Amino acid sequence: MNPPPHKISHIGIAVWNLEQACAWYREVLGLSLEGVEEVESEQVRVAFFRIGESRIELLEPLSEQSVIHKYLIHYGEGIHHVALEVSDLKARLREVAERGVRLIHQEPKPGAHQMNIAFLHPKSTGGVLLELCEPQEKPGEES
Amino acid sequence: MNPPPHKISHIGIAVWNLEQACAWYREVLGLSLEGVEEVESEQVRVAFFRIGESRIELLEPLSEQSVIHKYLIHYGEGIHHVALEVSDLKARLREVAERGVRLIHQEPKPGAHQMNIAFLHPKSTGGVLLELCEPQEKPGEES
Repeated sequence: MNPPPHKISHIGIAVWNLEQACAWYREVLGLSLEGVEEVESEQVRVAFFRIGESRIELLEPLSEQSVIHKYLIHYGEGIHHVALEVSDLKARLREVAERGVRLIHQEPKPGAHQMNIAFLHPKSTGGVLLELCEPQEKPGEES
Repeated sequence: MNPPPHKISHIGIAVWNLEQACAWYREVLGLSLEGVEEVESEQVRVAFFRIGESRIELLEPLSEQSVIHKYLIHYGEGIHHVALEVSDLKARLREVAERGVRLIHQEPKPGAHQMNIAFLHPKSTGGVLLELCEPQEKPGEES
Protein backbone atom coordinates (compact mmCIF):
# COMPACT_ATOMS: atom_id res chain seq x y z
CA MET A 1 0.00 0.00 0.00
CA ASN A 2 1.22 3.51 -0.77
CA PRO A 3 1.82 5.93 2.10
CA PRO A 4 -1.44 7.55 3.25
CA PRO A 5 -2.23 11.23 2.65
CA HIS A 6 0.09 13.22 4.94
CA LYS A 7 -1.75 16.52 5.30
CA ILE A 8 -4.84 18.49 4.43
CA SER A 9 -3.66 20.45 1.41
CA HIS A 10 -6.67 22.75 1.32
CA ILE A 11 -10.37 23.20 1.84
CA GLY A 12 -12.16 24.52 -1.25
CA ILE A 13 -15.05 26.89 -0.61
CA ALA A 14 -17.45 27.98 -3.36
CA VAL A 15 -18.31 31.69 -3.33
CA TRP A 16 -20.23 34.00 -5.64
CA ASN A 17 -18.03 37.02 -5.07
CA LEU A 18 -14.32 36.53 -4.48
CA GLU A 19 -13.63 40.10 -3.31
CA GLN A 20 -16.36 40.00 -0.68
CA ALA A 21 -15.35 36.56 0.54
CA CYS A 22 -11.66 37.52 0.68
CA ALA A 23 -12.53 40.60 2.71
CA TRP A 24 -14.37 38.38 5.21
CA TYR A 25 -11.50 35.93 5.68
CA ARG A 26 -9.03 38.80 5.98
CA GLU A 27 -10.97 41.22 8.13
CA VAL A 28 -13.06 38.91 10.31
CA LEU A 29 -10.73 35.92 10.69
CA GLY A 30 -7.49 37.86 10.25
CA LEU A 31 -5.98 35.44 7.71
CA SER A 32 -3.49 36.70 5.11
CA LEU A 33 -4.32 36.48 1.43
CA GLU A 34 -1.50 34.56 -0.20
CA GLY A 35 -2.52 34.99 -3.82
CA VAL A 36 -5.16 34.84 -6.51
CA GLU A 37 -4.96 32.52 -9.50
CA GLU A 38 -7.18 31.81 -12.49
CA VAL A 39 -7.59 28.20 -13.48
CA GLU A 40 -8.80 28.62 -17.05
CA SER A 41 -9.50 24.92 -17.60
CA GLU A 42 -11.89 24.91 -14.63
CA GLN A 43 -13.26 28.39 -15.30
CA VAL A 44 -12.57 29.47 -11.72
CA ARG A 45 -10.74 32.25 -9.96
CA VAL A 46 -9.11 31.01 -6.77
CA ALA A 47 -7.95 33.03 -3.77
CA PHE A 48 -5.88 31.23 -1.16
CA PHE A 49 -5.12 31.86 2.45
CA ARG A 50 -2.34 29.99 4.26
CA ILE A 51 -3.36 28.46 7.60
CA GLY A 52 -0.68 26.31 9.27
CA GLU A 53 0.46 23.67 6.80
CA SER A 54 -2.83 23.97 4.84
CA ARG A 55 -4.73 26.51 2.80
CA ILE A 56 -8.26 27.77 2.55
CA GLU A 57 -9.17 28.23 -1.11
CA LEU A 58 -12.07 30.41 -2.18
CA LEU A 59 -13.44 29.48 -5.60
CA GLU A 60 -15.40 31.92 -7.75
CA PRO A 61 -16.84 30.79 -11.09
CA LEU A 62 -15.63 32.63 -14.20
CA SER A 63 -18.56 31.46 -16.31
CA GLU A 64 -21.71 29.38 -16.21
CA GLN A 65 -19.68 26.47 -17.60
CA SER A 66 -17.72 26.22 -14.36
CA VAL A 67 -18.59 23.31 -12.05
CA ILE A 68 -18.44 25.88 -9.26
CA HIS A 69 -21.24 27.83 -10.92
CA LYS A 70 -23.34 24.66 -11.06
CA TYR A 71 -22.52 23.90 -7.44
CA LEU A 72 -23.53 27.39 -6.31
CA ILE A 73 -26.83 27.19 -8.20
CA HIS A 74 -27.60 23.80 -6.60
CA TYR A 75 -26.29 24.14 -3.08
CA GLY A 76 -25.41 27.79 -2.51
CA GLU A 77 -22.14 28.99 -1.02
CA GLY A 78 -20.22 26.61 1.20
CA ILE A 79 -17.55 23.93 1.40
CA HIS A 80 -17.08 22.41 -2.03
CA HIS A 81 -14.21 19.96 -1.54
CA VAL A 82 -11.36 18.83 0.64
CA ALA A 83 -7.92 18.13 -0.80
CA LEU A 84 -5.46 15.72 0.80
CA GLU A 85 -1.82 15.70 -0.23
CA VAL A 86 -0.26 12.39 -1.19
CA SER A 87 3.25 11.49 -2.29
CA ASP A 88 2.53 9.33 -5.32
CA LEU A 89 -0.74 10.46 -6.86
CA LYS A 90 -0.69 8.15 -9.87
CA ALA A 91 -0.14 5.00 -7.81
CA ARG A 92 -2.62 6.19 -5.21
CA LEU A 93 -5.35 6.67 -7.83
CA ARG A 94 -4.76 3.18 -9.15
CA GLU A 95 -4.97 1.81 -5.63
CA VAL A 96 -8.22 3.53 -4.63
CA ALA A 97 -9.77 2.53 -7.96
CA GLU A 98 -8.85 -1.09 -7.22
CA ARG A 99 -10.65 -0.71 -3.91
CA GLY A 100 -13.83 0.21 -5.76
CA VAL A 101 -13.66 3.99 -5.62
CA ARG A 102 -15.11 5.80 -8.63
CA LEU A 103 -12.67 8.38 -9.98
CA ILE A 104 -13.69 11.67 -11.55
CA HIS A 105 -10.20 11.94 -13.07
CA GLN A 106 -8.54 8.68 -14.06
CA GLU A 107 -5.16 10.40 -14.32
CA PRO A 108 -3.52 13.31 -12.48
CA LYS A 109 -4.12 16.69 -14.12
CA PRO A 110 -2.57 20.11 -13.44
CA GLY A 111 -4.34 22.25 -10.82
CA ALA A 112 -3.55 25.47 -8.95
CA HIS A 113 -0.30 25.92 -6.91
CA GLN A 114 1.82 23.78 -9.27
CA MET A 115 -0.01 20.70 -8.04
CA ASN A 116 -1.23 17.68 -9.91
CA ILE A 117 -4.72 16.79 -8.81
CA ALA A 118 -7.52 14.26 -9.22
CA PHE A 119 -10.98 14.07 -7.72
CA LEU A 120 -12.75 11.04 -6.28
CA HIS A 121 -16.49 10.80 -6.83
CA PRO A 122 -18.56 11.73 -3.75
CA LYS A 123 -20.76 8.67 -4.36
CA SER A 124 -17.70 6.57 -3.44
CA THR A 125 -16.51 8.60 -0.47
CA GLY A 126 -19.55 9.06 1.76
CA GLY A 127 -20.71 12.32 0.19
CA VAL A 128 -17.37 14.13 0.41
CA LEU A 129 -15.87 15.54 -2.79
CA LEU A 130 -12.27 14.49 -2.12
CA GLU A 131 -9.34 15.74 -4.12
CA LEU A 132 -5.98 14.01 -3.94
CA CYS A 133 -3.04 16.16 -4.94
CA GLU A 134 0.72 16.11 -5.21
CA PRO A 135 3.26 18.88 -5.90
CA GLN A 136 4.45 18.83 -9.51
CA GLU A 137 8.08 17.85 -9.99
CA LYS A 138 10.23 20.85 -10.76
CA PRO A 139 12.55 20.59 -13.77
CA GLY A 140 15.61 18.61 -12.75
CA GLU A 141 13.82 16.90 -9.89
CA GLU A 142 12.74 13.89 -11.92
CA SER A 143 14.36 10.78 -10.58
CA MET B 1 -6.75 42.25 16.82
CA ASN B 2 -6.14 38.78 18.25
CA PRO B 3 -3.78 36.43 16.40
CA PRO B 4 -5.58 34.69 13.50
CA PRO B 5 -6.42 30.97 13.52
CA HIS B 6 -3.11 29.11 13.20
CA LYS B 7 -4.19 25.75 11.81
CA ILE B 8 -7.09 23.63 10.63
CA SER B 9 -7.95 21.68 13.75
CA HIS B 10 -10.27 19.26 11.99
CA ILE B 11 -12.85 18.69 9.30
CA GLY B 12 -16.10 17.26 10.66
CA ILE B 13 -17.89 14.79 8.38
CA ALA B 14 -21.44 13.56 9.09
CA VAL B 15 -21.95 9.81 8.58
CA TRP B 16 -24.79 7.41 9.26
CA ASN B 17 -22.59 4.48 10.21
CA LEU B 18 -19.32 5.12 12.01
CA GLU B 19 -17.93 1.59 11.59
CA GLN B 20 -18.44 1.61 7.83
CA ALA B 21 -17.05 5.11 7.45
CA CYS B 22 -14.01 4.30 9.63
CA ALA B 23 -13.33 1.22 7.52
CA TRP B 24 -13.32 3.38 4.39
CA TYR B 25 -10.88 5.96 5.76
CA ARG B 26 -8.63 3.20 7.10
CA GLU B 27 -8.72 0.73 4.24
CA VAL B 28 -9.12 2.99 1.20
CA LEU B 29 -7.18 6.08 2.29
CA GLY B 30 -4.84 4.26 4.67
CA LEU B 31 -5.30 6.71 7.56
CA SER B 32 -4.90 5.51 11.17
CA LEU B 33 -7.83 5.64 13.55
CA GLU B 34 -6.70 7.66 16.54
CA GLY B 35 -9.71 7.13 18.76
CA VAL B 36 -13.45 7.16 19.25
CA GLU B 37 -15.23 9.43 21.70
CA GLU B 38 -18.85 10.01 22.65
CA VAL B 39 -19.94 13.59 23.14
CA GLU B 40 -23.06 13.07 25.21
CA SER B 41 -24.09 16.74 25.16
CA GLU B 42 -24.15 16.69 21.34
CA GLN B 43 -25.49 13.14 21.07
CA VAL B 44 -22.71 12.14 18.72
CA ARG B 45 -20.05 9.48 18.50
CA VAL B 46 -16.86 10.81 16.96
CA ALA B 47 -14.02 8.88 15.34
CA PHE B 48 -10.86 10.79 14.54
CA PHE B 49 -8.00 10.25 12.18
CA ARG B 50 -4.80 12.24 12.44
CA ILE B 51 -3.58 13.76 9.18
CA GLY B 52 -0.55 16.04 9.49
CA GLU B 53 -1.27 18.71 12.11
CA SER B 54 -5.04 18.25 11.61
CA ARG B 55 -7.70 15.61 12.08
CA ILE B 56 -10.58 14.21 10.10
CA GLU B 57 -13.54 13.66 12.42
CA LEU B 58 -16.38 11.36 11.50
CA LEU B 59 -19.62 12.19 13.34
CA GLU B 60 -22.39 9.64 13.86
CA PRO B 61 -25.62 10.68 15.58
CA LEU B 62 -26.52 8.83 18.80
CA SER B 63 -30.17 9.87 18.64
CA GLU B 64 -32.67 11.83 16.60
CA GLN B 65 -32.03 14.79 18.90
CA SER B 66 -28.50 15.15 17.56
CA VAL B 67 -27.87 18.05 15.19
CA ILE B 68 -25.93 15.54 13.11
CA HIS B 69 -29.09 13.46 12.69
CA LYS B 70 -30.93 16.53 11.48
CA TYR B 71 -28.10 17.38 9.13
CA LEU B 72 -28.05 13.87 7.65
CA ILE B 73 -31.82 13.91 7.09
CA HIS B 74 -31.57 17.28 5.34
CA TYR B 75 -28.36 17.04 3.36
CA GLY B 76 -27.16 13.44 3.50
CA GLU B 77 -23.63 12.38 4.37
CA GLY B 78 -20.86 14.89 3.78
CA ILE B 79 -18.74 17.68 5.23
CA HIS B 80 -20.54 19.16 8.21
CA HIS B 81 -18.09 21.72 9.55
CA VAL B 82 -14.53 22.99 9.58
CA ALA B 83 -12.74 23.80 12.82
CA LEU B 84 -9.93 26.34 13.05
CA GLU B 85 -7.69 26.48 16.10
CA VAL B 86 -7.19 29.84 17.78
CA SER B 87 -5.16 30.85 20.80
CA ASP B 88 -7.68 32.94 22.72
CA LEU B 89 -11.15 31.67 21.94
CA LYS B 90 -13.06 33.92 24.29
CA ALA B 91 -11.50 37.12 22.99
CA ARG B 92 -11.78 35.86 19.42
CA LEU B 93 -15.52 35.24 19.79
CA ARG B 94 -16.01 38.73 21.16
CA GLU B 95 -14.06 40.14 18.25
CA VAL B 96 -15.92 38.32 15.47
CA ALA B 97 -19.24 39.21 17.11
CA GLU B 98 -18.20 42.87 17.06
CA ARG B 99 -17.54 42.46 13.35
CA GLY B 100 -21.16 41.42 12.84
CA VAL B 101 -20.80 37.62 12.89
CA ARG B 102 -23.74 35.73 14.38
CA LEU B 103 -22.53 33.22 16.98
CA ILE B 104 -24.20 29.87 17.65
CA HIS B 105 -22.36 29.71 20.98
CA GLN B 106 -21.80 33.02 22.75
CA GLU B 107 -19.24 31.45 25.06
CA PRO B 108 -16.70 28.61 24.67
CA LYS B 109 -18.04 25.19 25.65
CA PRO B 110 -16.27 21.85 26.11
CA GLY B 111 -15.96 19.66 22.99
CA ALA B 112 -14.05 16.50 22.05
CA HIS B 113 -10.22 16.22 22.46
CA GLN B 114 -10.09 18.44 25.57
CA MET B 115 -10.91 21.43 23.46
CA ASN B 116 -13.13 24.38 24.11
CA ILE B 117 -15.23 25.14 21.08
CA ALA B 118 -17.78 27.56 19.65
CA PHE B 119 -19.58 27.63 16.32
CA LEU B 120 -20.21 30.62 14.08
CA HIS B 121 -23.49 30.70 12.19
CA PRO B 122 -23.18 29.73 8.49
CA LYS B 123 -25.40 32.70 7.58
CA SER B 124 -22.51 34.93 8.73
CA THR B 125 -19.66 32.99 7.14
CA GLY B 126 -20.67 32.45 3.51
CA GLY B 127 -22.42 29.12 4.08
CA VAL B 128 -19.59 27.45 6.00
CA LEU B 129 -20.33 26.06 9.45
CA LEU B 130 -17.12 27.26 11.13
CA GLU B 131 -15.99 26.09 14.53
CA LEU B 132 -13.32 27.96 16.44
CA CYS B 133 -11.54 25.90 19.05
CA GLU B 134 -8.76 26.10 21.60
CA PRO B 135 -7.09 23.43 23.75
CA GLN B 136 -8.38 23.48 27.32
CA GLU B 137 -5.88 24.59 29.91
CA LYS B 138 -4.52 21.66 31.87
CA PRO B 139 -4.58 21.98 35.67
CA GLY B 140 -1.62 24.08 36.75
CA GLU B 141 -1.34 25.77 33.36
CA GLU B 142 -3.56 28.73 34.22
CA SER B 143 -1.57 31.91 34.23
